[in-house]
Amino acid sequence: MPMPVRDHEYFMREALKEAEKAYEKNEVPIGAVIVWNNKIIARGHNLTEQLKDVTAHAEIQAITSASIYIGSKYLRECSIYVTIEPCPMCAGAIGWAQIPTLVFGAYDLKKGYSLFSENILHPKTIVIKEVLAEECKDIIQRFFQEKRKKL
Amino acid sequence: MPMPVRDHEYFMREALKEAEKAYEKNEVPIGAVIVWNNKIIARGHNLTEQLKDVTAHAEIQAITSASIYIGSKYLRECSIYVTIEPCPMCAGAIGWAQIPTLVFGAYDLKKGYSLFSENILHPKTIVIKEVLAEECKDIIQRFFQEKRKKL
Repeated sequence: MPMPVRDHEYFMREALKEAEKAYEKNEVPIGAVIVWNNKIIARGHNLTEQLKDVTAHAEIQAITSASIYIGSKYLRECSIYVTIEPCPMCAGAIGWAQIPTLVFGAYDLKKGYSLFSENILHPKTIVIKEVLAEECKDIIQRFFQEKRKKL
Repeated sequence: MPMPVRDHEYFMREALKEAEKAYEKNEVPIGAVIVWNNKIIARGHNLTEQLKDVTAHAEIQAITSASIYIGSKYLRECSIYVTIEPCPMCAGAIGWAQIPTLVFGAYDLKKGYSLFSENILHPKTIVIKEVLAEECKDIIQRFFQEKRKKL
């Protein structure tokens, strides 16, 4: 029996589960999944504090995992789902990997790649914006509210 | 006896040695070193083909190494030397790490971050351009000439 075709909200909820894992580790809660043939082949959540490494964003980790899984540095048949709009670093990686579909939750009004240049992505990449935007923004806001309470 | 103060050309020659290592591995020859207190604490060269991972640029690897060495995701007292102008992905990582000095060799006229946005770097980062630019460009040109000959 073929797997049911899943929609953007389904996969974004999976990315949100990754964001929750980051939250539990006291990391800025951003999550990502990479989908190939209607199946999640890689997951990642922000680990910059735990790994003490600015490059440990959810997307970068998911891209590295997906490349290992597929055995190719190009992910030309994949979609990436991220809870927050990627920063220029992650958009650059998505561009290099030639991922044809980027789906993100909430805009990042400070560091989102679109504030710098839309052309950081591959010219053929389709961008689907604001899928479960409220949920994706809420978890970030909740995280920073908690942080401020502790100060 | 204190170490002699080394100049930008000295460290760029070390980055060029990294680029040579990439060349020998049939990778696009780009190299980077990160300097702290007049000492090289991290080295990297492009390994995107060998690792089948678009994120394996010289700068990303050097930043991860330097962060492990220093034990901090911020590299606020470091300089990064790269043979070719960083792409948006790597400039983004340099920005997140708040590296105060970026020294690069040759401009990248296709993928250099400055073609997208100068603001990808941290606003306080000083950029020193075209150190040993000819040598840094030559090794890339030599690599692609060799590639074309083999076709």
